[in-house]
Amino acid sequence: MAESALDRATQLLARLPGLGPRSAKRAILQLLKRRDSLMLPLAEALAAAAREIRTCETCGNLDVRNPCAICLDRARNSSALCVVTEVADLWALERAAAFRGRYHVLGGTLSALDGRGPEEIGLTALIARAEREPLSEVILALPGTLDGQITGHYIAERLASLSKEVDVTRLAQGIPLGGEITYLDDGTLTAAFRARRPAL
Amino acid sequence: MAESALDRATQLLARLPGLGPRSAKRAILQLLKRRDSLMLPLAEALAAAAREIRTCETCGNLDVRNPCAICLDRARNSSALCVVTEVADLWALERAAAFRGRYHVLGGTLSALDGRGPEEIGLTALIARAEREPLSEVILALPGTLDGQITGHYIAERLASLSKEVDVTRLAQGIPLGGEITYLDDGTLTAAFRARRPAL
Repeated sequence: MAESALDRATQLLARLPGLGPRSAKRAILQLLKRRDSLMLPLAEALAAAAREIRTCETCGNLDVRNPCAICLDRARNSSALCVVTEVADLWALERAAAFRGRYHVLGGTLSALDGRGPEEIGLTALIARAEREPLSEVILALPGTLDGQITGHYIAERLASLSKEVDVTRLAQGIPLGGEITYLDDGTLTAAFRARRPAL
Repeated sequence: MAESALDRATQLLARLPGLGPRSAKRAILQLLKRRDSLMLPLAEALAAAAREIRTCETCGNLDVRNPCAICLDRARNSSALCVVTEVADLWALERAAAFRGRYHVLGGTLSALDGRGPEEIGLTALIARAEREPLSEVILALPGTLDGQITGHYIAERLASLSKEVDVTRLAQGIPLGGEITYLDDGTLTAAFRARRPAL
């Protein structure tokens, strides 16, 4: 059987989210079939990304630049700040082209269970940034979990005590596009019901 | 947003079986969080594997050596040859420790639709090997698909016309271990029924 580099590569691949030991083996076999077109380019791109990608010190985004392209983009609305808990969430909002302001990436949600307090998730930096920048609105795009709600509530309270007035909003809750009522959980249905709006 | 190496790495990762564009993004974010413990080692292991791993010219296995460790292992039974269509199948049988003979990896199954004939999947080499080596049994461990059955039938016929006598067997078909009757397809059930054996 195979050894050394092959086993190492398989074991490391298996640690990626979405892959397990078996799919990592399948992936390695695919890669070995396409060494020059896929395997070596992937190895090089991973090494290059590991070297080049930085965390933006302003917003927490990942980019080849620091500050990142979004923070540097003068065409974006600098008075609206969207708070997310993961870089992946920022990318999702960008993919949807849902927002043309700037972002702030927290290090997760507050969590009593996992021992993440305001300091651990970088809330002090967010409050300082809100104090410093000419913001008119902070949009909380936080996960719909209990921890996400507690985090949103906490941020809203802290922002309410700023020396200036800032609107704090959160993303609407409701039925997802194409979502079928039967399959939705009770919490979503209740939230969608409470937030019902005129149909015309 | 991110650029260059990051996008390239994401796009290449998304081409792996089991990953799509979204899970590739999640994987890249995980990797960037663990650059030194995961991302750079993975890049190095992939590059090393691409350089070091060879195809065994005797059996078609992938290994750092050619001939591979299995072909070189004198403790293995050299009179039994197990024919598979994928290196992944060889690895699965080795994982199960189901067999202690040697292997022959074909380049897939015969397929009229995909235009794979005996030459394309390396059957001539298999027949030549069977002629040359002191084999007493050839075990066909081929996929349970129609193409797999046709391929098995074809190989059995070719081996029957060798200048010497070789037993040609195939893996038993039946209910998988832990398989629930309700969820099995008709073909498996029929095969399991036909191949029924005394219960004691």
